[in-house]
Amino acid sequence: MTKLKLTYFDGPGRAEAIRLCFVVGGVEFEDERVNKEQWGAMKTAALENEKRNICQMPFLPWLEVDGVVISQSLAILRYAAATAGLDGKAPLEKAKIDMVLSTFQELLEITVKYVLAEESDKEQVLEKAKEVWKKMLTKLESMMKESNGGGKWLIGNDMSAADIVIFSFLKQTDARLSSMVSKSIYDDLDIPCLKGLAERVGQVEKIKEYYDKQAEQSTKS
Amino acid sequence: MTKLKLTYFDGPGRAEAIRLCFVVGGVEFEDERVNKEQWGAMKTAALENEKRNICQMPFLPWLEVDGVVISQSLAILRYAAATAGLDGKAPLEKAKIDMVLSTFQELLEITVKYVLAEESDKEQVLEKAKEVWKKMLTKLESMMKESNGGGKWLIGNDMSAADIVIFSFLKQTDARLSSMVSKSIYDDLDIPCLKGLAERVGQVEKIKEYYDKQAEQSTKS
Repeated sequence: MTKLKLTYFDGPGRAEAIRLCFVVGGVEFEDERVNKEQWGAMKTAALENEKRNICQMPFLPWLEVDGVVISQSLAILRYAAATAGLDGKAPLEKAKIDMVLSTFQELLEITVKYVLAEESDKEQVLEKAKEVWKKMLTKLESMMKESNGGGKWLIGNDMSAADIVIFSFLKQTDARLSSMVSKSIYDDLDIPCLKGLAERVGQVEKIKEYYDKQAEQSTKS
Repeated sequence: MTKLKLTYFDGPGRAEAIRLCFVVGGVEFEDERVNKEQWGAMKTAALENEKRNICQMPFLPWLEVDGVVISQSLAILRYAAATAGLDGKAPLEKAKIDMVLSTFQELLEITVKYVLAEESDKEQVLEKAKEVWKKMLTKLESMMKESNGGGKWLIGNDMSAADIVIFSFLKQTDARLSSMVSKSIYDDLDIPCLKGLAERVGQVEKIKEYYDKQAEQSTKS
């Protein structure tokens, strides 16, 4: 069996959708969580080591596949989606799912920019971020409306990685923003179908179990 | 047969690697090239039209697959690579190719930023771009060296979309920079294996024919 180890910081960020694909697909993986210090040491070693694990780019997440490190979060996400059978069937369906994954990447990019922005720039970055979120999420809401009347999944008849990234983005961005600006991103956006979709994904048994287990662990620690 | 129409501006940019995948795979497609005015009208129509072609995001390239528009250049590139049989075989090979495609996307992003920068910012953006190019191309050079001794293809034993994006990036960035700053990007970079790879890709019969035909057309017009 292929041995998988996903390395990322201890938070959702660019890794959560990857973790969720593995969880939903029942694909076993080691969920390694590192702190900034540990990552610093790994990065230095990777930069110095040109000969081994040559696919390493110096940013997380990394996915070790039988000892070979793959980087680039979108490539890892697509590997996870394919391994979990969440990447669609026909070529056009696969392309639509890919399109949503790329869009998710852009949505997340601007969110990360906001989180990392200097205090003095935050307001300006937030305004820009809101514009991007609105434009893209409104398009995705239209896609959702057109797909089986908006009450099922984003692409095709089965849940796919596209649904998982929407769930992951709304969940983490909303949680982060609510704590930062005391306001839900939902408030400014008319996205009832996407919201319903996120709720549906959150109710998937394996995903519920995953978050229940996380909550249990954080209570213990 | 699936009817494909790729729409982009009349230049390489984000579309050339997609075109080349189709060309190498012998996949028939309409190569629609629009000017800024035409794109403006298309964009307005797309933004107003929420009901049809719902996958449209308001940026090029677009790929129409039997009348359905897909956007996001990386999703289209991956569709083209898969259709042309240039996306690798085993899952790990596919993931490595994907990683290179994502890296190409980032390399191109910073190049586009430079091309579009205000005259007063150009110098600063170029310095930043050179850093990014150097970091990523050096990593890719290491990958190339480790792959069959560096004299063949980047991933695995056959030419893939990974080789095509390296070729397309070096060709267009070098041409653009040479005309803008009278200096080849090769000069500052120690990437003999990648350079050799780009030459090899340029010698592929179908790619030679494609550029010969383009040269012929531009002489006529």
